[in-house]
Amino acid sequence: MTKTPQHIIIIGGGPAGLEAASCLGKVGYKVTVLEKEEQTGGKLRLWYKLFPGFRPSDEVREYLANGHKMNPPAIITNSEVIRIDPETDHHNVFLADGQTFKADAVLIATGFQVFNAEKKEEYGYKIYDNVITSVDLEAQLKSGDPVRTVAGIAPHRVAFIHCVGSRDKKVGNIYCSRVCCITGVKQAIEMKEHLPQAEIFNFYMDMRMFGQNFEELYIEAQQKWGITFIRGRVSEIAENIDGSLQLKAEDTLSGRPMKMNFDLVVLLVGMVPAAGTEVLGKSAGLAFTSGNFFASNDTHFNQNETHTPGIFVTGTCREPLSVAETLTDARAATVRIISWLRENELKSNN
Amino acid sequence: MTKTPQHIIIIGGGPAGLEAASCLGKVGYKVTVLEKEEQTGGKLRLWYKLFPGFRPSDEVREYLANGHKMNPPAIITNSEVIRIDPETDHHNVFLADGQTFKADAVLIATGFQVFNAEKKEEYGYKIYDNVITSVDLEAQLKSGDPVRTVAGIAPHRVAFIHCVGSRDKKVGNIYCSRVCCITGVKQAIEMKEHLPQAEIFNFYMDMRMFGQNFEELYIEAQQKWGITFIRGRVSEIAENIDGSLQLKAEDTLSGRPMKMNFDLVVLLVGMVPAAGTEVLGKSAGLAFTSGNFFASNDTHFNQNETHTPGIFVTGTCREPLSVAETLTDARAATVRIISWLRENELKSNN
Repeated sequence: MTKTPQHIIIIGGGPAGLEAASCLGKVGYKVTVLEKEEQTGGKLRLWYKLFPGFRPSDEVREYLANGHKMNPPAIITNSEVIRIDPETDHHNVFLADGQTFKADAVLIATGFQVFNAEKKEEYGYKIYDNVITSVDLEAQLKSGDPVRTVAGIAPHRVAFIHCVGSRDKKVGNIYCSRVCCITGVKQAIEMKEHLPQAEIFNFYMDMRMFGQNFEELYIEAQQKWGITFIRGRVSEIAENIDGSLQLKAEDTLSGRPMKMNFDLVVLLVGMVPAAGTEVLGKSAGLAFTSGNFFASNDTHFNQNETHTPGIFVTGTCREPLSVAETLTDARAATVRIISWLRENELKSNN
Repeated sequence: MTKTPQHIIIIGGGPAGLEAASCLGKVGYKVTVLEKEEQTGGKLRLWYKLFPGFRPSDEVREYLANGHKMNPPAIITNSEVIRIDPETDHHNVFLADGQTFKADAVLIATGFQVFNAEKKEEYGYKIYDNVITSVDLEAQLKSGDPVRTVAGIAPHRVAFIHCVGSRDKKVGNIYCSRVCCITGVKQAIEMKEHLPQAEIFNFYMDMRMFGQNFEELYIEAQQKWGITFIRGRVSEIAENIDGSLQLKAEDTLSGRPMKMNFDLVVLLVGMVPAAGTEVLGKSAGLAFTSGNFFASNDTHFNQNETHTPGIFVTGTCREPLSVAETLTDARAATVRIISWLRENELKSNN
């Protein structure tokens, strides 16, 4: 039974990929992580603090780095996977630079990208300077510099627009991105901490506070921080002559159309599949969800297995998930990979 | 290194406990599942079909049973755990009948119970016969008998009331129970399949369709099935002289108070911690969430570990979760248990 340890290729070095690498490494597998960026950590590198407890995202990055001390995986950065050729007893993984890797099992953990807010032209992102996204704001908060309008003024009135690129048939995304609602609550509170005088408004469709302590934070945002939540779909944002922004919406609770002026507008951008998801998935014979994420071969009991044996998926490349949910999902995926490899080994020994 | 395999006690034989038992069994651990009921399967035995794909719940039970073929756990039914005494190198688990078990690690998977709808007296559960809960309806659908009022009439008008026992400070539950919204959508469609002539109304606060295909099903409920969704908090239900029910609500979208008559009212009851959660947790030195579920020792990266080393938690005993999420969580928990046991072993060997 002495043999080379089986080789698992993990595509993507974000939270899902790194956590899976650490779990598989501890069990003794040979693991290679292929990361297309210069650094691992994925989107976690962009976030300042995490909801709902305002934990610095760097603490999770530190946790992930510590997980690799025991049996560190090979981590190859700047390596973009463009194709997977599934074969019967192994899979070949091809990089953009021509390299090829052979794997006993492949775990795809390629994550997501944020919805391109420019597609919602009516909101004026990249047209009006004082319209930013939640990702821009996260970077701004992370920089430590005070939040200011382009004119250098502390904003008096800030609007957060929920569901930008989510639950929007017009842009082709019917699904909910799960994390934008709570991100809006978190960022509104952070904004208020920096700018206690500012009036902060959140325009939402439904407040989806489904996670542990989400509802509590939502109540805190209203009661302790005085943040206003308006159930209303924003139809248009236009720039006034002074650089401030006029927002048109229908307050769906009062039934009235409304116009309001803001100094800064934050668009809560949803999750969409990462670039290359479709090409990579098709090369490996995978199926897709209605939102074009990687589909599981069973929505109840095999969320991490695909329709191609030996190819697994985890994290936000299969559906929008929070950081905590992503780590849980990555661990669950490793259990599935280990089972599958052992069952295969038993078969080939008999 | 030849030694007795380590013994893991799993408290609770619902989906979480059974899935964890199967994962741990495959890796070679000795596993004992202690189930207080006569049968395993937990609440899954009560559900007819699962959201969002209307899969018969029995298919998941079959999946769970198949998982135990390789290295079956000892499953001891009718055994209620009343106390855990943590010691430094093992834990003692005490049953109500006086038996004691010794474990190297303990996984608590005691699940949830549904909110007791009688506490919302204003809705008249157990006072008016035509007020039932979503659990009652699930049993009714499972029975195969047609849905009828107590008078034996096919209901013409049915109301589903969301958030019964959830997001309700008055009953002490601030948190969202996650699954009631989508259960309401699923059951409304099932009702409409059985009673195509019936008018079905859902009274909700926010529609929390955060999962894969949830939003799609919500749209289908409106467009294909003609189910009406009213954003409104129901204040009171009263019985008319003919046994029908008068429902008072404020339509929070139109701002108008409304009265409507229904033949049947279904209360979507939320999740609360199972009986005995507090006593069991305290005996083991565990902490609790604000909703009195078992708290993790870290909300981001250790959701399955508690503050007591060697005692783990999984599934709905730590927060409301769907069946799919529960199975994922159970797998993630097993990875944590395996890591912990191995690290302990290394320590004691050095």
